[in-house]
Amino acid sequence: MPVKSPSKKILVIHGPNLNLLGKREPQIYGHQSLKDIDDELQRQADGLGVAVETFQSNFEGAMVEKIQQALGNCDGIIINPAAYTHTSVAIRDALAMADFPIIEIHLSNINKRESFRHESMIADIVDARVAGFGAHGYSLALEGLVRMINAS
Amino acid sequence: MPVKSPSKKILVIHGPNLNLLGKREPQIYGHQSLKDIDDELQRQADGLGVAVETFQSNFEGAMVEKIQQALGNCDGIIINPAAYTHTSVAIRDALAMADFPIIEIHLSNINKRESFRHESMIADIVDARVAGFGAHGYSLALEGLVRMINAS
Amino acid sequence: MPVKSPSKKILVIHGPNLNLLGKREPQIYGHQSLKDIDDELQRQADGLGVAVETFQSNFEGAMVEKIQQALGNCDGIIINPAAYTHTSVAIRDALAMADFPIIEIHLSNINKRESFRHESMIADIVDARVAGFGAHGYSLALEGLVRMINAS
Amino acid sequence: MPVKSPSKKILVIHGPNLNLLGKREPQIYGHQSLKDIDDELQRQADGLGVAVETFQSNFEGAMVEKIQQALGNCDGIIINPAAYTHTSVAIRDALAMADFPIIEIHLSNINKRESFRHESMIADIVDARVAGFGAHGYSLALEGLVRMINAS
Amino acid sequence: MPVKSPSKKILVIHGPNLNLLGKREPQIYGHQSLKDIDDELQRQADGLGVAVETFQSNFEGAMVEKIQQALGNCDGIIINPAAYTHTSVAIRDALAMADFPIIEIHLSNINKRESFRHESMIADIVDARVAGFGAHGYSLALEGLVRMINAS
Amino acid sequence: MPVKSPSKKILVIHGPNLNLLGKREPQIYGHQSLKDIDDELQRQADGLGVAVETFQSNFEGAMVEKIQQALGNCDGIIINPAAYTHTSVAIRDALAMADFPIIEIHLSNINKRESFRHESMIADIVDARVAGFGAHGYSLALEGLVRMINAS
Amino acid sequence: MPVKSPSKKILVIHGPNLNLLGKREPQIYGHQSLKDIDDELQRQADGLGVAVETFQSNFEGAMVEKIQQALGNCDGIIINPAAYTHTSVAIRDALAMADFPIIEIHLSNINKRESFRHESMIADIVDARVAGFGAHGYSLALEGLVRMINAS
Amino acid sequence: MPVKSPSKKILVIHGPNLNLLGKREPQIYGHQSLKDIDDELQRQADGLGVAVETFQSNFEGAMVEKIQQALGNCDGIIINPAAYTHTSVAIRDALAMADFPIIEIHLSNINKRESFRHESMIADIVDARVAGFGAHGYSLALEGLVRMINAS
Amino acid sequence: MPVKSPSKKILVIHGPNLNLLGKREPQIYGHQSLKDIDDELQRQADGLGVAVETFQSNFEGAMVEKIQQALGNCDGIIINPAAYTHTSVAIRDALAMADFPIIEIHLSNINKRESFRHESMIADIVDARVAGFGAHGYSLALEGLVRMINAS
Amino acid sequence: MPVKSPSKKILVIHGPNLNLLGKREPQIYGHQSLKDIDDELQRQADGLGVAVETFQSNFEGAMVEKIQQALGNCDGIIINPAAYTHTSVAIRDALAMADFPIIEIHLSNINKRESFRHESMIADIVDARVAGFGAHGYSLALEGLVRMINAS
Amino acid sequence: MPVKSPSKKILVIHGPNLNLLGKREPQIYGHQSLKDIDDELQRQADGLGVAVETFQSNFEGAMVEKIQQALGNCDGIIINPAAYTHTSVAIRDALAMADFPIIEIHLSNINKRESFRHESMIADIVDARVAGFGAHGYSLALEGLVRMINAS
Amino acid sequence: MPVKSPSKKILVIHGPNLNLLGKREPQIYGHQSLKDIDDELQRQADGLGVAVETFQSNFEGAMVEKIQQALGNCDGIIINPAAYTHTSVAIRDALAMADFPIIEIHLSNINKRESFRHESMIADIVDARVAGFGAHGYSLALEGLVRMINAS
Repeated sequence: MPVKSPSKKILVIHGPNLNLLGKREPQIYGHQSLKDIDDELQRQADGLGVAVETFQSNFEGAMVEKIQQALGNCDGIIINPAAYTHTSVAIRDALAMADFPIIEIHLSNINKRESFRHESMIADIVDARVAGFGAHGYSLALEGLVRMINAS
Repeated sequence: MPVKSPSKKILVIHGPNLNLLGKREPQIYGHQSLKDIDDELQRQADGLGVAVETFQSNFEGAMVEKIQQALGNCDGIIINPAAYTHTSVAIRDALAMADFPIIEIHLSNINKRESFRHESMIADIVDARVAGFGAHGYSLALEGLVRMINAS
Repeated sequence: MPVKSPSKKILVIHGPNLNLLGKREPQIYGHQSLKDIDDELQRQADGLGVAVETFQSNFEGAMVEKIQQALGNCDGIIINPAAYTHTSVAIRDALAMADFPIIEIHLSNINKRESFRHESMIADIVDARVAGFGAHGYSLALEGLVRMINAS
Repeated sequence: MPVKSPSKKILVIHGPNLNLLGKREPQIYGHQSLKDIDDELQRQADGLGVAVETFQSNFEGAMVEKIQQALGNCDGIIINPAAYTHTSVAIRDALAMADFPIIEIHLSNINKRESFRHESMIADIVDARVAGFGAHGYSLALEGLVRMINAS
Repeated sequence: MPVKSPSKKILVIHGPNLNLLGKREPQIYGHQSLKDIDDELQRQADGLGVAVETFQSNFEGAMVEKIQQALGNCDGIIINPAAYTHTSVAIRDALAMADFPIIEIHLSNINKRESFRHESMIADIVDARVAGFGAHGYSLALEGLVRMINAS
Repeated sequence: MPVKSPSKKILVIHGPNLNLLGKREPQIYGHQSLKDIDDELQRQADGLGVAVETFQSNFEGAMVEKIQQALGNCDGIIINPAAYTHTSVAIRDALAMADFPIIEIHLSNINKRESFRHESMIADIVDARVAGFGAHGYSLALEGLVRMINAS
Repeated sequence: MPVKSPSKKILVIHGPNLNLLGKREPQIYGHQSLKDIDDELQRQADGLGVAVETFQSNFEGAMVEKIQQALGNCDGIIINPAAYTHTSVAIRDALAMADFPIIEIHLSNINKRESFRHESMIADIVDARVAGFGAHGYSLALEGLVRMINAS
Repeated sequence: MPVKSPSKKILVIHGPNLNLLGKREPQIYGHQSLKDIDDELQRQADGLGVAVETFQSNFEGAMVEKIQQALGNCDGIIINPAAYTHTSVAIRDALAMADFPIIEIHLSNINKRESFRHESMIADIVDARVAGFGAHGYSLALEGLVRMINAS
Repeated sequence: MPVKSPSKKILVIHGPNLNLLGKREPQIYGHQSLKDIDDELQRQADGLGVAVETFQSNFEGAMVEKIQQALGNCDGIIINPAAYTHTSVAIRDALAMADFPIIEIHLSNINKRESFRHESMIADIVDARVAGFGAHGYSLALEGLVRMINAS
Repeated sequence: MPVKSPSKKILVIHGPNLNLLGKREPQIYGHQSLKDIDDELQRQADGLGVAVETFQSNFEGAMVEKIQQALGNCDGIIINPAAYTHTSVAIRDALAMADFPIIEIHLSNINKRESFRHESMIADIVDARVAGFGAHGYSLALEGLVRMINAS
Repeated sequence: MPVKSPSKKILVIHGPNLNLLGKREPQIYGHQSLKDIDDELQRQADGLGVAVETFQSNFEGAMVEKIQQALGNCDGIIINPAAYTHTSVAIRDALAMADFPIIEIHLSNINKRESFRHESMIADIVDARVAGFGAHGYSLALEGLVRMINAS
Repeated sequence: MPVKSPSKKILVIHGPNLNLLGKREPQIYGHQSLKDIDDELQRQADGLGVAVETFQSNFEGAMVEKIQQALGNCDGIIINPAAYTHTSVAIRDALAMADFPIIEIHLSNINKRESFRHESMIADIVDARVAGFGAHGYSLALEGLVRMINAS
């Protein structure tokens, strides 16, 4: 019996400096590398019957173009814009063109950190937000997003 | 074989006006009543092997006293302070005495609403935050909280 | 011939410290007690063919619950939130659920007083506002509200 | 028996753009023209035994001079400064010279509109304020003003 | 010889969360419980020949009503509004009706803490303020208040 | 039996214009001169078994140097910086070098006065604050400071 | 063959001090007088087959009344409110009643000038804006407006 | 011997509500009418050998046009813009075209009054300012202006 | 006769997300693609006898470098920085090095949109601005720019 | 005939850096030295029949003490606090004790300079202000002050 | 004798538009090109016995990645983020991961320029700052950094 | 051959509390005393062929007068205003009269400290700034200043 290809595609975007996850300041960000997180998301996606693509960049423009390519080609985005959370109108504009649900995620509770991190340029256009659960937050976000997609 | 009593106790606190959930503005807040949410949390808690107590009040003082009683008697709090999110220092002070993890939850993405709802008086003392998943957010919060408790 | 029961019901809510009206600082607030005002409203209501219920509390939570009980059970609210005018999101949230007209009333012109009294948390969700006419303002508010109800 | 001339004179001032009332945007401002309002005020004044003069201008300076002429010649002013509510210190200065009561009135609840309309340059010098009752607000203001005059 | 009843009555009001004093975070707030403080105040009051009544509540409305009942029935208030220091206009309004001296007290120096604790809603209506002496501050406040009452 | 010299030394610093105390505006600041206050503090110090040195200057620089000289040579400072309360970083820097307790004192409740007097440049580095008790506040401050020193 | 009267009518409004154009500060505003600009607009209008009426006033009230008269009688407005750009709610209110397109124009780039000129009270209700092209900007505005009218 | 006509012409402009000077609130503004001030200025001008023209209007536009007419036709302006001091960019723009000295004058010390009167829209373009001397300030301003003109 | 090469070169720069023009949200941005606009500009340039080069990028750095390359090699820039309008100091710095005129253009009237779009980082260094004419705005900008270049 | 000693004494206080007047930046502050100004004031005082004492210091404390010494010993103060205008609460407090008129003077129009010079700490407690007449302003201030003293 | 390789490696990062140094606006930035600065740094480094690598980019993402690569591979960074100084959280986040000293450098004194250049996103995480010495500042920064490294 | 006296004179000014350097909080400010720093500067000055004079005061007025005396008598100033950095307009005014270069220096990176230390009253009038290198910063400042002087 042929394997049925997953009917739903989800894009996970990691912003600047997240490529160093697990290698630097593990006491803060934990010992998991970004690859560990991506692998875990793939396993979870298999269980949920959805396809997940992951992407990381330190360039604002590259993140914009990745979002653009997803328009019409995916069913939901989970995005951790990292530093660009607080400054990028371009990422906001790209996300605003989507007609599928978007989840904003942060590893730490950004409201516990410096005041310039309290404001998010995308907080009012995403559908839901998760923060402070560490790497496990990606798993919760994926679970919540799939539920949203199926309910719509 | 005797039933093992759950080793972890979790308190879920609902703030003002949430007692009307499901009865009013269902197009915004969904058709689930607060009792539906509480029942669902109980079922999920059974599966996770933890005990959940739920509580709702429209009085700031009553919420403060419920949190006080939980100190030393529970392992984690999930709280949706609703309107008091934005004004209550008293709830913040009560929560700040806790030495167990706290999750802040909102049904809607409060950053999409009026600007006075963007600020939370407890955002910087909770451990994690969930917003925008509707009633399902309680389920994600419980799952994330149990993971946190077990990891600590 | 049987007495026709009034077809419209109106709730009048008085906030904290108004129970002392007439007993304290009469040079500012006049010599009328809250009971005098309520009695006068009843007489005026009889003349207008509507029913009026009056309520006073010093507790924010009690005011919230009174508003909740009025949902579906009354045709209009006249509210003087007193000190809670400037701080209560919970009262705002309860009022926002109403589908009937709401009038905000203040005995004094609050814009003539301290600056923290200039802002009202409910000013942008009520239908009309009256301030500065002293106790007579309640009468004007009732007259205006009944006109609004009949016109809708 | 000779007709007794009214012992009290009241001036009603309408600010800029109100001359178009009823002709434009009736879904917002209603179908009553300014003349309808003025006629209704005259009828109500007759009943109350007071004299009412009405005046409209689109010129800030003309409104200032009308107020100046009223000083010493009238017993109360009802003013809807419209757009000049938010910008005119000159009208404020003219009104501040009055030793009779002044009522500020707005057709709509200006706190429901753009933020630059929330501030009134005269709010802290008038005796009372009415907003949000539409054309009926003029009637309530006249009733309240006459009560104030008689009580003083 | 009969015992002379104290001629002056003083009310001491403790705000939210102070009921847990001494049981929680003793490294910050000391090991004295609220009962210890109240007992010490009674002993000091005996020495000074005044009567002291103490009261604690976590409810803003209950504190308002306690102050209302004191009007006309006491000679001075010492109040530690705790969290309500920063948010309650209702307590301010109740206190403002008093015609006897009021002392505001805080266990810690609130200006050393989070910025939202720097502002007190009652600072400009009380007669004197004491902060940072821990439990001993109540003793200083009582001594100062009695001196004030005797001097007036 | 030889007189035991006091084991603890306390410096009391009075800021600008306080040298005129009692001579000017007695209706506001009372009839006590600065010398009266200093004499009273000496008497109280004798009773408490501590030594008190008092100092007044209208020069910010002179106050800084007095504080510098106290470092290592005293056990506590009571300071009323008067006008320099609101502007002097230099006095703050000098005080911040101290390793003994510091009490900030004001004759009047500065929060009742002009808004530029509400902010104190030293409020967050002193250990305790007293305001509004008039000259008696110095006595309360000394009593509180000695208790603090003995407890440490 | 009879001359066809232009089917579209456009009103051009010049605000205060623009009557001195070309006579004062030519190094800044150029040597063209307001009449030169108006003549040029007439020639361009002939070419485009539309009718243009031009108007200048130093009075805010006169500008309001000119706009009122245009309602229902013209197909588009080009307005340079000059100094009233930054202060007039009355002109804004008059323009807001229009159901035809409005172009805001400034001779200079007002963002290069004093900060109080950066804000325009009408910027968010006009359809398009042109600034910095000097007198030629009127020509561009007319060309753009005609295109807009024809496209609608 | 023929009378020599004065070589220097000075324009004195009085803003809104100043036409009522001396008639209203004499305890604040003194008993001198505007005519008294103008007559006194004429006498002083004769002594100084200059010509003075005085002008009052309640219309912002009329003040603008008066200033425009003075350009090239006078040697200095003394202006008391009254209420328009705080709001008029149009008067500022007209004054900014002048190439002769301008003195801003106010009867009272406007910094002692409401905060919205502290800001002057023309303070940074006038050559000198006088405030707080009452009617005598006009005399000082004229003396200072003539000195400036003669020195240039 | 040989074709004369255009003597003036103009660079048109389109910022992030504009590459999707016409493909997304046509109800807002119209059905024209970016290629349509560029083609139209080429045709218009031929008519005006100037050369136009067009460029689009989603990368802030790439836009900076394109501007750098234009320095010394072109006679004017028309730039629509899109999202980078509000955040990029780097683009501002690159543009500030130009000694030829620059026109800022936006398809929509950005003052009608979210408040964070009201501020432009380049508004005070460009020579002229056009907004709200849709794709036609490019044509007006080119016409205005060529006039500017020819006049200089 | 014996010389009559002047009945009125006036103190003129010059703040920091004014001792260098005339020696530095003459293009801004003129060629007159502080001694020239003081000499001129003495001559003018002789003519007016009053005594003038002049004083300059670069020390805030010295200025405070000079004002203190003048209390009860002079009839008016003219003060140019220079840099301390914007920062000194101590000078304000000293001046506030005076029961004679005070004139604030500045050589330049401080509103034309940096924004931190626009605020004066004494503007709301002085009786009148003069700015922008250069050294001649001292003469105008003296004349105005003497008029004030004689009128009181 | 073999050449000893330098034991310390230092990375110098130049931000956007600095590649044009010396070619543009030499009156402001001097005639030195970036290559001149880099060559001079190499010579100075040889003298100090350290190795210097220099890098320039106009891309925020490229600067982030260069900093990432330096983590663990160098002993200190000198960075002139140019325009990104004021906007980049991503560069801040990358720098914050370093465990070696960082020096922020600017050619000009940025506090003398536009207000948006006064704020630096990295000012509070770098170890030292140098500004205003022009190209020579790089030399001072290198000397200071080497001293820091050797002292640690 | 006679010793050539140094042709350039440099003044180094240390502000309040710096006289305690090295004696207090060595873990923060290092073990070097102010005399150590001054001695080191003298040695460095000898090598550079310039003369250095050093000066410390805790009095704002004394610093002002030292700067005044340097005008015309020195070739450059290095100033660490310490606490007066943030409050002194008088020092700013004195420095602004200089026609030689000025370097502002701070031992620590003041942007890493309390927010009220982030603003410097002299930052926009000095030629260059150095901060965060500890005592070594004085040496870098001297080197940079001499280079500046020689280049001018």
